[in-house]
Amino acid sequence: MRDVAIIGIGQTPVGEHWDTSLRALGADAVRAALDDAGIPAVDALYVGNAYGASISSQSHLAPLIADHSGLNSIEAYTIESAEASGGAALRAGYLAVASGAVETVMVLGVEKSTDMIGTARTRARSVSLDADYEAIHGATQPALAALLMRRYMHEFGVELSAFENFSINAHTNGSKNANAMYKNKIKPGAFAKAPMIADPVSLFDSAPDADGAAAVILTSVERAVDLVPQPIRITGSGAASDTLALHDRDDLFGMKAITLSTNKALMQAGITRDAINLFELHDAFTILSVLALEAAGFAERGDGWRLADQIGLEDSLPISTFGGLKSRGNPVGAAGVYQAMEAVLQLRGTAGANQVTDAKVALIQSVGGLGSAVFTHVLQT
Amino acid sequence: MRDVAIIGIGQTPVGEHWDTSLRALGADAVRAALDDAGIPAVDALYVGNAYGASISSQSHLAPLIADHSGLNSIEAYTIESAEASGGAALRAGYLAVASGAVETVMVLGVEKSTDMIGTARTRARSVSLDADYEAIHGATQPALAALLMRRYMHEFGVELSAFENFSINAHTNGSKNANAMYKNKIKPGAFAKAPMIADPVSLFDSAPDADGAAAVILTSVERAVDLVPQPIRITGSGAASDTLALHDRDDLFGMKAITLSTNKALMQAGITRDAINLFELHDAFTILSVLALEAAGFAERGDGWRLADQIGLEDSLPISTFGGLKSRGNPVGAAGVYQAMEAVLQLRGTAGANQVTDAKVALIQSVGGLGSAVFTHVLQT
Repeated sequence: MRDVAIIGIGQTPVGEHWDTSLRALGADAVRAALDDAGIPAVDALYVGNAYGASISSQSHLAPLIADHSGLNSIEAYTIESAEASGGAALRAGYLAVASGAVETVMVLGVEKSTDMIGTARTRARSVSLDADYEAIHGATQPALAALLMRRYMHEFGVELSAFENFSINAHTNGSKNANAMYKNKIKPGAFAKAPMIADPVSLFDSAPDADGAAAVILTSVERAVDLVPQPIRITGSGAASDTLALHDRDDLFGMKAITLSTNKALMQAGITRDAINLFELHDAFTILSVLALEAAGFAERGDGWRLADQIGLEDSLPISTFGGLKSRGNPVGAAGVYQAMEAVLQLRGTAGANQVTDAKVALIQSVGGLGSAVFTHVLQT
Repeated sequence: MRDVAIIGIGQTPVGEHWDTSLRALGADAVRAALDDAGIPAVDALYVGNAYGASISSQSHLAPLIADHSGLNSIEAYTIESAEASGGAALRAGYLAVASGAVETVMVLGVEKSTDMIGTARTRARSVSLDADYEAIHGATQPALAALLMRRYMHEFGVELSAFENFSINAHTNGSKNANAMYKNKIKPGAFAKAPMIADPVSLFDSAPDADGAAAVILTSVERAVDLVPQPIRITGSGAASDTLALHDRDDLFGMKAITLSTNKALMQAGITRDAINLFELHDAFTILSVLALEAAGFAERGDGWRLADQIGLEDSLPISTFGGLKSRGNPVGAAGVYQAMEAVLQLRGTAGANQVTDAKVALIQSVGGLGSAVFTHVLQT
C-alpha cells in the first residue's frame, strides 16, 4: 500500500452562492487546488456531494465538473454519504492513490444547499434520514438532534449553558476566516437568548446550511516530495457506519461509528490521542461536538461538555479552528473536504490568525446523519 | 497493488418490486452474495445507486442497507455515476481491495426506478442529464438517444432494420433468464411495427426502467483461492468521462470515454480484443450498443451495426448474454453490477441455457448518460 499525501488545496468562500451554478462552484475549487499544487491536471476527480439531485436537479456531477474544469475525459464519479460525503470522497481518493492504480486524485466537495428555502429545503435535506421510519413522520435533522440533546441534558444533568462555549469558540475562530459564512462573534449572554430551532437546539446550537466547494489533491508521498515543498501526509483513514434511525440504536449516546472509525485511523497512523494538535470535528449541532469528543475518546461518557474550555486555538484540543460548520458554515457534502483543506493550512503553518501553534498532527472527522456514517482521517506534516 | 477476485454473487429478479423497499431489495442481494461466497460478513459495502434521492426520497443508502443486511458498523458509502453507478461502485471496490486497506468489499447495485410513473419518473430520471442545458429544455434520455440514432442513420446510410437484431438477440437470451424482466422473444416483423418512444427510437430499441439489486464480493486473489473453488479475477479496470451534454462533444459518435476506458482495462489485463469471449455492454438503446462496439474497437466507425449477426451466444462476440438491459431489464444504478454478476456466471460455467461455450474472458462496460462516464472491467477465470 502506497503512502498518500495532499499536495494542493482550494476553496471558495462559504455562503449563499445564488448566482453561481453547481458546476461553476466546483470548478472554482478545482482550479484553485491545481494552482496551489502547481500542476496542470489530475488523473481522477472524486466528488463528494449530498443534495445535487434533490436540491439542484443535477446528479452525475463528477463528469460535469471535470469537463467544466478543463479536465474532460478523466476518471470521475460521485461519492455520497449524506453530510459525510466529503469525508467519504476523501476516503475513496485515499484508497485509489494507495492502491497504485491512480497517480493523482482531486477530491472535491461541492454543495449548493441554499437554492431551496423553507419546507422545500427541509424536505430535500431529509432524504438522508431514514425515509420510511423518520422522514415520513416529519422528523428533521434538527428535530432529531434536539431529541439527542434533551436526553443528554436529562441523563447527565447538564444545563443549556454546557453547550455555550462550543458555539462561542466556533464564531471566535470563524470571525478571523475570510471564507466563513458568519464572521460575527457571539456576544456575552446572546447564546442563552437565541431563538429556538427545535427545543433545546437553538440558532446558536446548529450550523447554517451553506453553499461552497473545497478541494484537495492527493498523490503518493514518493511523488509528492518531488512536486511540492510541504506535502501533508494522510497517515490514517478509518470508516464505519451505524443505523440511520436513532430509534434503532442500542445506545443513543454511544456514537459507535465515531469510536470505530477514530480507532481505525489512529491505529493505522500509529499515534495516540496525546499526539493530536487539533481536531476538526463535525459540529453541525453542539450536541454532536460533545458526543464526538466522548466517542472519539477525548472525554468519558457524559463528560464531553466539560472540555468546552479546552477547545480554543491556544488550548489543549483546538476544534473548529476556522469556525467549523457552525461559523464557517455547513456546505453539507463539501464539509468534510473543507476540514481536510483547513487541516492542511494548519499543518503547513499557513493558517494566519487561525493558526494552532506548532500544529503537526490533525484529526478530521466527517459525520453523516446523526452518526450513521463516519470517516476519520489523520493528517501529519 | 494486490490482485483482486470476485468470490460471491447475488441477485434479485429484475422487474417491478412495488412491494419491496429499497433497503430490503438491496439486502436480498447482499445476503445471496454472502451465501454464495460462504462467508458471514464483509468489511465494507459500496452501493451503486442513481435515483434513491430523486425517486425513493432516500439517500444515505449504504449504511441503511448495511444495517438491514446484518452488517451494521462496517464501512459503507454510495457511489453515483448515473446509469454507470454500478460500474463505478465496482471500480471503487476494486481499488479498495487492490490498495490492501480493505480485505473484503461487497459491491451492491440497487435501484427502484418504477416507484414513479409517467412524467414524474421522466423528470426524476433527468437529473443525470445536464440540468442547465439539456433537462431544462425538456430533453430526456430517449430523446437524446433518438438524436444520436437519427444522425447515425443519416451519416452512415443505414435503415432502422440495422438495429433490429440487437433487440432480437437480447430478448432471445433474456427468454432463458429466470431473473429477466421480459422473457418474451421478439417475433419476426414485430421490430418494424414497434411503437415509437422518440422517433426513431422505438419500444424495442430502448431498455425498460426496472427495479433490482445485484451484488458481487471482492477480495484479494491470494485470499480468494483459500475461500472458494472458482474465484473470478478482475484483471483490468478502466474509467473515463466525457461531457454530459451531447452538444458539447467534438464528435457525436466518438464515445471517447468508451474508447479510453476500454483501452485502459485491456492494457492492464494485458490482452487483446481477440481474447474476449463475451462483452456485456450497456444496451440501454440499440444505438448505444452499435456505438459501443465501434468505440470499444470491435468495429470501424459506422460499421458497428454490421456486427448484428455475430452477437449471439454461439457467435464470435456474444453480447447481452442474459438479455442485457433490454430484456433482463435496466435497474439503472444496479445494471453495472448485474453485468459483473452475469459475467461471473459465464466464467464459472454456470450460466445454464445462457452459457457461452468455454468462456474464459469477459469484458463488461457500464455507461452513464450517453457516454458521459464509462467504467470497463476485464474478468477472467
